[in-house]
Amino acid sequence: MAVKVTPRSEDYSRWYTDVVQMADLADYSPVKGCMVIKPHGYALWENVKAGLDRRFKETGHVNAYFPLFIPLSFIEKEAEHVEGFSPELAIVTIGGGKQLEEPLVVRPTSETIIGHMYAKWIQSYRDLPLLINQWANVVRWEMRTRLFLRTTEFLWQEGHTAHATAAEAQEEVLRMLDVYSDFAINDAAIPVIRGRKSESEKFAGAVTSYTIEAMMGDYKALQSGTSHFLGQNFAKAFDIKYLDENNELQYVWTTSWGLSTRMVGAIIMVHGDDQGLVLPPKLAPIQVVIVPIWKSSAEKARVLEVVRQVEAQLRDTVRVRVDDREGYSPGWKFNEWELRGVPLRIEIGPKDVEKEQVVLARRDIPGRPGKRPAPLTGLAGTVQESLAAIQDNMYRRALDFRDAHTYDPGDYGEFREAVANGFAYSWWCGDGECEAQIKEETKATIRCIPLEQEPGATGKCIHCGREAHERAIFGRAY
Amino acid sequence: MAVKVTPRSEDYSRWYTDVVQMADLADYSPVKGCMVIKPHGYALWENVKAGLDRRFKETGHVNAYFPLFIPLSFIEKEAEHVEGFSPELAIVTIGGGKQLEEPLVVRPTSETIIGHMYAKWIQSYRDLPLLINQWANVVRWEMRTRLFLRTTEFLWQEGHTAHATAAEAQEEVLRMLDVYSDFAINDAAIPVIRGRKSESEKFAGAVTSYTIEAMMGDYKALQSGTSHFLGQNFAKAFDIKYLDENNELQYVWTTSWGLSTRMVGAIIMVHGDDQGLVLPPKLAPIQVVIVPIWKSSAEKARVLEVVRQVEAQLRDTVRVRVDDREGYSPGWKFNEWELRGVPLRIEIGPKDVEKEQVVLARRDIPGRPGKRPAPLTGLAGTVQESLAAIQDNMYRRALDFRDAHTYDPGDYGEFREAVANGFAYSWWCGDGECEAQIKEETKATIRCIPLEQEPGATGKCIHCGREAHERAIFGRAY
Repeated sequence: MAVKVTPRSEDYSRWYTDVVQMADLADYSPVKGCMVIKPHGYALWENVKAGLDRRFKETGHVNAYFPLFIPLSFIEKEAEHVEGFSPELAIVTIGGGKQLEEPLVVRPTSETIIGHMYAKWIQSYRDLPLLINQWANVVRWEMRTRLFLRTTEFLWQEGHTAHATAAEAQEEVLRMLDVYSDFAINDAAIPVIRGRKSESEKFAGAVTSYTIEAMMGDYKALQSGTSHFLGQNFAKAFDIKYLDENNELQYVWTTSWGLSTRMVGAIIMVHGDDQGLVLPPKLAPIQVVIVPIWKSSAEKARVLEVVRQVEAQLRDTVRVRVDDREGYSPGWKFNEWELRGVPLRIEIGPKDVEKEQVVLARRDIPGRPGKRPAPLTGLAGTVQESLAAIQDNMYRRALDFRDAHTYDPGDYGEFREAVANGFAYSWWCGDGECEAQIKEETKATIRCIPLEQEPGATGKCIHCGREAHERAIFGRAY
Repeated sequence: MAVKVTPRSEDYSRWYTDVVQMADLADYSPVKGCMVIKPHGYALWENVKAGLDRRFKETGHVNAYFPLFIPLSFIEKEAEHVEGFSPELAIVTIGGGKQLEEPLVVRPTSETIIGHMYAKWIQSYRDLPLLINQWANVVRWEMRTRLFLRTTEFLWQEGHTAHATAAEAQEEVLRMLDVYSDFAINDAAIPVIRGRKSESEKFAGAVTSYTIEAMMGDYKALQSGTSHFLGQNFAKAFDIKYLDENNELQYVWTTSWGLSTRMVGAIIMVHGDDQGLVLPPKLAPIQVVIVPIWKSSAEKARVLEVVRQVEAQLRDTVRVRVDDREGYSPGWKFNEWELRGVPLRIEIGPKDVEKEQVVLARRDIPGRPGKRPAPLTGLAGTVQESLAAIQDNMYRRALDFRDAHTYDPGDYGEFREAVANGFAYSWWCGDGECEAQIKEETKATIRCIPLEQEPGATGKCIHCGREAHERAIFGRAY
């Protein structure tokens, strides 16, 4: 483990892959495009799940589980949907030793099969709203894959809701966008921009797609969660109707929203450094690691006694691990836990025991500046404060980084430079043709049209110069 | 919802299907053999998961995630394994619009792909034991399916561990069998017999399979969890070797153990009655439902005030729901929550408010005998005691039921009668031929050879009369 990760500045892409593998988050699998999520990576995902699931339940949602397999004919029922997904499907043609009469699609997303069930379950306005979420694996055949960011199979949650009115469905779509945004900011320490997708970037089958967009360490954008207003598209394709209070049959209005294991990729890319992973305390599987330091066996006994006391003091309030392995030097252990992103390290040596103190080392501030002694008395409180400070600092730093690389280019020349080095926040005329040309010329896409716009303000489209009523975030993206 | 479930005594099989559907646990899906787990059923499964996951982590296991797809060649590497699974496979032959060069199997279980990864991850004795669990969906093509009990796709956990010695692996196998048994008894209130499977009933690829067997309400057995000693079968097929302390290459010893959504079926069948579901408090998504009773609006206001107080008093310690829906009578609500198996109902009417009391109604003791008043003061404690009493009573009742239907037949004539009405606990010579004849003649199989045997005792095989050294549990099974 003396091997170090490739420096970020040298090769960001290799740095990312190194961190994922060396921090034991994931590994390649023998199946092309699929990955193995290793225990450390999965524990991180479990914390992401817990943070989201709590928020979903607080906003009135329940979990359920729908089948992995979808009849091919279902996918074909919603025209735009099928266009969006056809090239990405994995298809089961043999079951129980026989050729199937109708091939089954391994779900790329579940709007269709859930739509089919909703048509059965929803009869009257009393059955609405129906607010269901599913935690599941989905499959989209990908040519170029990257661990966590783009894999043929990935884990996610997909919420699917049905409502009596368009307004209610719209409200739901934005509520869940806010849930994602709240999670990203407060738990993952990742600043995100909430916004609308342009027509060309929206989800196949949606009327409007919303997104939270984040800036990675290489200035590129990552779509980190999406929430879709599906209008009555799926209601009409799957005949999901309800009797309203006047006893008239109406189509429902539906939404869907999803966040995936991509989020793990975002956490790595936003916070990681040349030492490896840096995990936000709220999501870190291990929040505090205690590393004892000794030379003689007499020292060892004295130190370990204090280590056990400290562990006992912390155990109820933080996820703590003691690394008392033999045969590894303290320095080796420091590197190991830094690589794995543990937010706070507690070092305890013979001198600390004498002084009734420990040394705290913050992962977000590497080296000496992040170290300070702390008295044993009241250590649980000190550790809590320190974790809160780390969480806060990580968010602020990521926000500053994004703001420093978000530009307001004065002309298209400056725009080209901007999107090569970050985000351009620019007026856009709303024309898809203009958008396509920008993409062609700069590789930048419209990441989103932020929800927050200066009311009534207008400007000139950064590309064509025509009058524009909205500003958009442009950038190169994963 | 005036429709009632088919009485158990009339048609057990229809009763089961009625309960599953009317209690909103699951529904049929448009894909043959697959089911939809509805929110109430999924919440129950989430509690099963939480109870097991806690126990896995307490015994040193970590979670990870391996790919859904397995190259067909992997399945073929372990001869007995392939024989066991070939007829049950779902196979992906098309991906991304193209015929695949090597077809991919949708995992029926993950020994093979995990074996492949372990071969990569395990180098030295320091890497052992490797104790990983996975929560996942698996697919086994089934001809005759039943909701929760046998479905083409089901949810489960599969533990896969690798050890340096056979003894350690054996210890792990029995440790996890005990974890399952502890969960079944203490959380699901289901008495189980821990035992070994006969050669003919064991898992394809295992050296020895262990099981927990439970008796359902129709006296039939349900295998409720299994733990397998795989010896070096998969280690040799996938070349999983480690350098021991003497620097010599050795094959590891592996185990696997699994428990699935079948457990939900067991809970329904062991505890349910003619009113519907009866859920053990430890696993019930809603442990307590509060039903307010009023006639006038003045009564309503007074009653609801107390209802809110009670809810607030209970909220921190139990999963409580208030059913204050308009337009439904209290009697209708009672039926509804009984059908859904809520362990304890709290009724609060105007007279109760006057007397500063509530009425508790136990689901496990239907009707008047299960009702009693309880003072508002100290209600949280009373409710806790009541839930504990229900949990306890449910277990004892299921144990009495099983014991009352477990027989010690004196001859093969009595044996035939025994297995038509429950379990036969009988001496068996150990000969597979004898076992096959019993199955042929009575439809009963060896459910398990219990771990607990009278040391040194012998008897005569219930079928052939030859000397026998072990007694087995025989029964008809799901």
